[in-house]
Amino acid sequence: MRIPKHIGIIPDGNRRWALAKGLGKEGGYNNGILPGLDLYHICRELGIEEMTFYGFTVDNTKRPTIQREAFSQACVKAVEKLSKEDAELLILGKTSSAMFPDVLKPYTSRYRFGAGGMKINFLVNYSWEWDLGLHEGVIGPTLKTSDVSRIDLVIRWGGRRRLSGFLPVQSVYSDLYVIDDYWPDFKPQHIYDAIEWYSKQDVTLGG
Amino acid sequence: MRIPKHIGIIPDGNRRWALAKGLGKEGGYNNGILPGLDLYHICRELGIEEMTFYGFTVDNTKRPTIQREAFSQACVKAVEKLSKEDAELLILGKTSSAMFPDVLKPYTSRYRFGAGGMKINFLVNYSWEWDLGLHEGVIGPTLKTSDVSRIDLVIRWGGRRRLSGFLPVQSVYSDLYVIDDYWPDFKPQHIYDAIEWYSKQDVTLGG
Repeated sequence: MRIPKHIGIIPDGNRRWALAKGLGKEGGYNNGILPGLDLYHICRELGIEEMTFYGFTVDNTKRPTIQREAFSQACVKAVEKLSKEDAELLILGKTSSAMFPDVLKPYTSRYRFGAGGMKINFLVNYSWEWDLGLHEGVIGPTLKTSDVSRIDLVIRWGGRRRLSGFLPVQSVYSDLYVIDDYWPDFKPQHIYDAIEWYSKQDVTLGG
Repeated sequence: MRIPKHIGIIPDGNRRWALAKGLGKEGGYNNGILPGLDLYHICRELGIEEMTFYGFTVDNTKRPTIQREAFSQACVKAVEKLSKEDAELLILGKTSSAMFPDVLKPYTSRYRFGAGGMKINFLVNYSWEWDLGLHEGVIGPTLKTSDVSRIDLVIRWGGRRRLSGFLPVQSVYSDLYVIDDYWPDFKPQHIYDAIEWYSKQDVTLGG
């Protein structure tokens, strides 16, 4: 089976999951932390070299405070969990904003946990316009995420068939695999199915 | 039904269609011209304001000459057909290359055919790196396709679930609808199904 080197993860559907459980919209994010850790373990086992997780975006922070605090705290807790594993973490996002959690600032340069190994990129208070330096039609001069490699496979939970601003440059040639289940309902079979599907796709890189 | 304002078209599968018919790989492109015109008529009827067609890319021109000439000629013929309709054509691509057909140069500024109306953008010898001005990690200073608006819905024929470098900035929030049939097998029902699906999606633009 052909294993992707770099997988992008869009863990969507937390709010719809919470509503379906009779919770407030903010009630889903805390249930998205352990799925992320499970996924990391499975991917490490499979030999995947790099993963990028979509944490939250600048646009997301315009939501009600109770939701914003919930997804922001979930990101902080996810990093706490990861810090007990072997990984090389890089957090990418707009740090010049009160929305960026202070405790995550040390990780905006690549940071080794344990024995290192798998690269984990985590988009926190990210924005594609920020990434491209886009402002009134002018772009550049450098991609903020130039340390992030090309993504082979993007997996999105929650049924939407779109990238929603996820790393537009690294995703130009990515295959997009969509899972209808909401992210807090993550099952290992999701990732096995995604990789089996990916291994049957051709790789042309635009050629 | 909610109608998208701007649709992106990735007419893939021409070579696989040709092989399935026992033709050489170059034999499909000529059968992709009339489908494009049919699609234009249907979308105009539906009130869609803008369409962008993926013609060919700089990467595609590295293919064998017989294929390159076939897809290049198909693009020229498609413009000849469109010139008898009402449309506002803008061709976007790298003109400073022998691969860009000379006869298409007049259309690299927006050009009105007949009574004008629907905007048609046509990517010819396009490259996402060219679009972003990307060179050795430096980007900018301006997006080459800044006259092209945000795309609501990208429809891809030929079964691949990827954007393949198609307007990365305008596609950040696009919904992606994939049709397994090859492009030369276009049927009007494809576009009706795509728009019906699109009309059931939510529009968050990252929010």
